[in-house]
Amino acid sequence: MIDQLGLIGCGLMGGSLALALKRAGLVRKVVGYSLSPSSSQRAQELGVIDVTAPSALMAAAGSDVVVLAIPVNATETTLKAIRPVLEPHTLIMDMGSTKRDVVDAARRALREQVSHFVPAHPIAGRELAGVDHADAHLYTDRQVILTPIDRTGAMQTERAHAIWTALGCHVRRMSPEAHDAAYAAVSHLPHLLAFAAINAIQQQPESAEFLELAGPGFRDFTRIAASDPAIWRDILLSNREELLQQIRHFEQALGAFSSALADGRSDTIAELVSQASRSRRQWRMHNPKTGATP
Amino acid sequence: MIDQLGLIGCGLMGGSLALALKRAGLVRKVVGYSLSPSSSQRAQELGVIDVTAPSALMAAAGSDVVVLAIPVNATETTLKAIRPVLEPHTLIMDMGSTKRDVVDAARRALREQVSHFVPAHPIAGRELAGVDHADAHLYTDRQVILTPIDRTGAMQTERAHAIWTALGCHVRRMSPEAHDAAYAAVSHLPHLLAFAAINAIQQQPESAEFLELAGPGFRDFTRIAASDPAIWRDILLSNREELLQQIRHFEQALGAFSSALADGRSDTIAELVSQASRSRRQWRMHNPKTGATP
Repeated sequence: MIDQLGLIGCGLMGGSLALALKRAGLVRKVVGYSLSPSSSQRAQELGVIDVTAPSALMAAAGSDVVVLAIPVNATETTLKAIRPVLEPHTLIMDMGSTKRDVVDAARRALREQVSHFVPAHPIAGRELAGVDHADAHLYTDRQVILTPIDRTGAMQTERAHAIWTALGCHVRRMSPEAHDAAYAAVSHLPHLLAFAAINAIQQQPESAEFLELAGPGFRDFTRIAASDPAIWRDILLSNREELLQQIRHFEQALGAFSSALADGRSDTIAELVSQASRSRRQWRMHNPKTGATP
Repeated sequence: MIDQLGLIGCGLMGGSLALALKRAGLVRKVVGYSLSPSSSQRAQELGVIDVTAPSALMAAAGSDVVVLAIPVNATETTLKAIRPVLEPHTLIMDMGSTKRDVVDAARRALREQVSHFVPAHPIAGRELAGVDHADAHLYTDRQVILTPIDRTGAMQTERAHAIWTALGCHVRRMSPEAHDAAYAAVSHLPHLLAFAAINAIQQQPESAEFLELAGPGFRDFTRIAASDPAIWRDILLSNREELLQQIRHFEQALGAFSSALADGRSDTIAELVSQASRSRRQWRMHNPKTGATP
């Protein structure tokens, strides 16, 4: 289905996509480029990419599908760099966790050629960065959000949709704005809270003793705090308005607990905990097999 | 090793302990009591307990080991109820997540017989409450904290230590105060943050759409928010002073993010995220097999 994939960024996310496409027999050749030469070298050693390109431009040249798997702030420069080699049918996708800034970057960088670009966000990840942790099954059964704009080519959108579907993903389309509002709430804020929870412990003199006592609840709650710092710096900053609004919602919810605790209002604490516990027990991660969230 | 276990509270935690002891061949007979008759009935159907007692007193009568696996606020009443049937060698343990309040309750309820009582906290749990989710392996490889006081009997402490060790746990001893300070930081605060994060989403009109889009990061981060509300109401209230102090530490750490985001200070965001990510990547859950946290 893909004759040549130009993979720009050979880390966990990009590497996992290349492996998934190869495993499914959907790509003939993968040409990879990474800012750090050791990453693309390692990706080639692992068979994630077939050829190492010396630049983003050279990875894109001759590729019918180009995927950007890089920190979102690098989108504009990268798109500008590859623009000269786009052919009429080329599909470009990103994999970033924010979409408004990526769409703006694509408009500026690609101008009339923005039709080639389909903004994409697969809802998967791991806290272990780097191509060594790439996994052909990272995206299986996961949701992928596409946020095409008016000027996105219909052919490109259909092809992006078909590629992710062929990998066992459930594809949804929505506006970049709706995407960023939702993921500020269910992904960016949780990451920020996990980062802050770790930093709050680290700033205390007893942090080492405390951490040695932590158990499985702490392990799962803070897993996302180990995420790649360069990726997450960009996400938090790119979506900062929605994120600041979610922080305010969270501070309200936290304040309800603090004041009830300070006053010893046990009925209020009981109600706040019951409400959260009930909601969380009812929630199920979207299951693409049934297409429903039971 | 145990002739008769009196299990007061036949839920997830108590049920898992009974199953583990049975599996290890460490108990001859389990007599169970639950406030809700359907729980003890179900525990008996599942073979978790052998006999259902009509009261806490009757579960304790004739038992050489009595275990309280109940919300911490019920400790004092329960200990008062069973006091008349204590024999000179009886060991009583609790399994609560807070220790100062439990020790105070034991002093008040048992008076000179407080020597029988060994405060214990196994660092394990699940977000699924009830005896149907009891698991003989819940405590395997986990830490168990004992917080004996001056008046705790040495024989009882040794026996409690031996029981948990026989189940494959790594036992540590510390003061109730040190326990409560540490677990406010690494367990009680994380639970409270997870509860508040869920409530913050629920209070928004778009909550259903948001939750349908959430992925595996959200799933793991909020897992502990599904914990048993009655248990957690008591924990949060019992340890509220330490917890309020941890909330202040957290608010500082969150404030550092908020103000850097509001000002668009990307270097600060990068530093805050890197610090958290590095700390979390270095952390490993204590492994009793090696006795070390690598």
